[in-house]
Amino acid sequence: MPRKIIILTEGHTEPHAGKTAANVIRYRRPEVVALLDSTQQGRSSQELLGVVGDVPIVGKLDDAPQADTLLLGIAPPGGKIPASWRAIILDAISRRKMEVISGLHDFLCADPEFSAAAAKSGVKLTDIRKNSEKSIARRVGLRPDCLRVHTVGHDCSIGKMVVSVEVTNGLKKRGQDAKFIATGQTGIMIEGDGLPIDCIVADFVSGSAEKLVLENQHHDILLVEGQGSLVHPSYSGVTLSLLHGCAPQALILCYEIGRDRVTGVENVAIPPLAKIKNIFEVMANIHQRCEVIGIGVNSRRVNASEAARERERIRDEFCLPVCDVLRDGPDELVDAVIALKNRGGWQSP
Amino acid sequence: MPRKIIILTEGHTEPHAGKTAANVIRYRRPEVVALLDSTQQGRSSQELLGVVGDVPIVGKLDDAPQADTLLLGIAPPGGKIPASWRAIILDAISRRKMEVISGLHDFLCADPEFSAAAAKSGVKLTDIRKNSEKSIARRVGLRPDCLRVHTVGHDCSIGKMVVSVEVTNGLKKRGQDAKFIATGQTGIMIEGDGLPIDCIVADFVSGSAEKLVLENQHHDILLVEGQGSLVHPSYSGVTLSLLHGCAPQALILCYEIGRDRVTGVENVAIPPLAKIKNIFEVMANIHQRCEVIGIGVNSRRVNASEAARERERIRDEFCLPVCDVLRDGPDELVDAVIALKNRGGWQSP
Repeated sequence: MPRKIIILTEGHTEPHAGKTAANVIRYRRPEVVALLDSTQQGRSSQELLGVVGDVPIVGKLDDAPQADTLLLGIAPPGGKIPASWRAIILDAISRRKMEVISGLHDFLCADPEFSAAAAKSGVKLTDIRKNSEKSIARRVGLRPDCLRVHTVGHDCSIGKMVVSVEVTNGLKKRGQDAKFIATGQTGIMIEGDGLPIDCIVADFVSGSAEKLVLENQHHDILLVEGQGSLVHPSYSGVTLSLLHGCAPQALILCYEIGRDRVTGVENVAIPPLAKIKNIFEVMANIHQRCEVIGIGVNSRRVNASEAARERERIRDEFCLPVCDVLRDGPDELVDAVIALKNRGGWQSP
Repeated sequence: MPRKIIILTEGHTEPHAGKTAANVIRYRRPEVVALLDSTQQGRSSQELLGVVGDVPIVGKLDDAPQADTLLLGIAPPGGKIPASWRAIILDAISRRKMEVISGLHDFLCADPEFSAAAAKSGVKLTDIRKNSEKSIARRVGLRPDCLRVHTVGHDCSIGKMVVSVEVTNGLKKRGQDAKFIATGQTGIMIEGDGLPIDCIVADFVSGSAEKLVLENQHHDILLVEGQGSLVHPSYSGVTLSLLHGCAPQALILCYEIGRDRVTGVENVAIPPLAKIKNIFEVMANIHQRCEVIGIGVNSRRVNASEAARERERIRDEFCLPVCDVLRDGPDELVDAVIALKNRGGWQSP
């Protein structure tokens, strides 16, 4: 029986903080019964989160009596549970006996009050980021015939996961044996497997990424979700561990129109996209060949004609396939992946 | 009252695996009463570990009756406690009531047998790597007048910590207000403070490095110990988190003569030093100016004339100060740091 999820976004029903909510709605819509945000009650989730398929926004838990699962729908920097959410979460556990799912760094099960309430109510607390990974990357046993494509970007929270999922789905529609490899909390919620790369002990991040590849390389094509950015001073090491751990042959470079300051480090400017492409290719090519084969534009902040102009500008600058997977569909990127697959990667004539 | 340390290296009394033992002897010699390795009993620690100042190698704990502290003296990849060591550690805790200090990823206090024995004996277990760091790098509040020098290298375990300590000590001898910033288990044991960067949750590694800088930037010069290498597929992300977190203005590039395969990933070759220098400068210069100002050679595997030839070769290739800090002394690197300090960094005319 599928879960009946109410997504908690209290005070944060907007596309950036609420990206977990937006993407769970985008890819698991049938399981979502409502959004809980008393500050936005009755408004349109489509308008607030920018995601197709409207979900009722309710003001309290009991406006969704059928819900059996509370999912925390935000991904703030540092991953802390907002103080104002505690009463709602405790009420869900103690009175409604709901399962609670969280992807935050602050674990529900490490919180004395939540864990005591859950034990008393016999309720399950699921911390998506909790792990005890201790794998070390060895660069041994990677299957050369498995094409590893990795989404990277100019900043965090700009749509690398969405590009990965949409390109995977596009490849499957063309009959390819492709698999989305989730590396973040939202991706894991959507796909049902993967590893929370940014919450693994530093020495074992590359090894965990390599493990995800080794466990899934019976598929012909892997789309490995990227994290952060090599130019993000707070998270660049997560990005590089993942890049070197999954050892991709191809990158899809993602960016969002209008983003010019590093998220969370606004005193630092994001470098030009050409420089970022170069930095990723330098770091991806240390021990093997890897190239950017396409560009994913997130054009949610501009209108259709501005998006079309930007797409042409980027196509001219980089001479690569370019699309906004949500606005244009992922076909150009899907074509690029299939072309590389059919060539047998970079080694073949 | 200083501790009386017996260092456990059972079966691992050699420079690579035993680098923790070697460096604790090098920098905390007065506190060390013996090495425990029944397979090397009676041999010379100087010869086996390559460190000046001989320490008796004993075959059992009771050959060092005065010892009150057992220090685990190895740093293996993955940081596991060797199975054969369990009985020795338990004996130290239960019968000898010794404090046990470990820098491994396998925590003593998370081991049910060790923690039960320690609780029963009233003995302290110290896990150097254990932490709950949750800082995020913000690139705010860095003092421009504090010169941050960071040691980086072509592989792990090649002497970045030794170069950091020796250059710091050399600067202090010249009257400079310098501080060694420890970022690894051995450095923390030697300096008495610092953070175990490689054991922090991935999202918070840069932030922890930045925190170390913010807490110590009342000093004029910081020598921040590097970890791993940007070309090490298993640990490159740790290296980059640290590089971007401490935001250095200057790098000292360290390498060991004769090292040509990546440690632990021997199927992968270490790229040429010039390529590695370029990669570090690309990644260190994304948001500010930073240059390699000198090179630290570890020449322990070759004789004096070979070391001298290599030093000249590298000086010719890079036109930079070069020395083996243990063989030649750190003066050339100390001079380079003071010269940059006196210029006021890169911004001054």
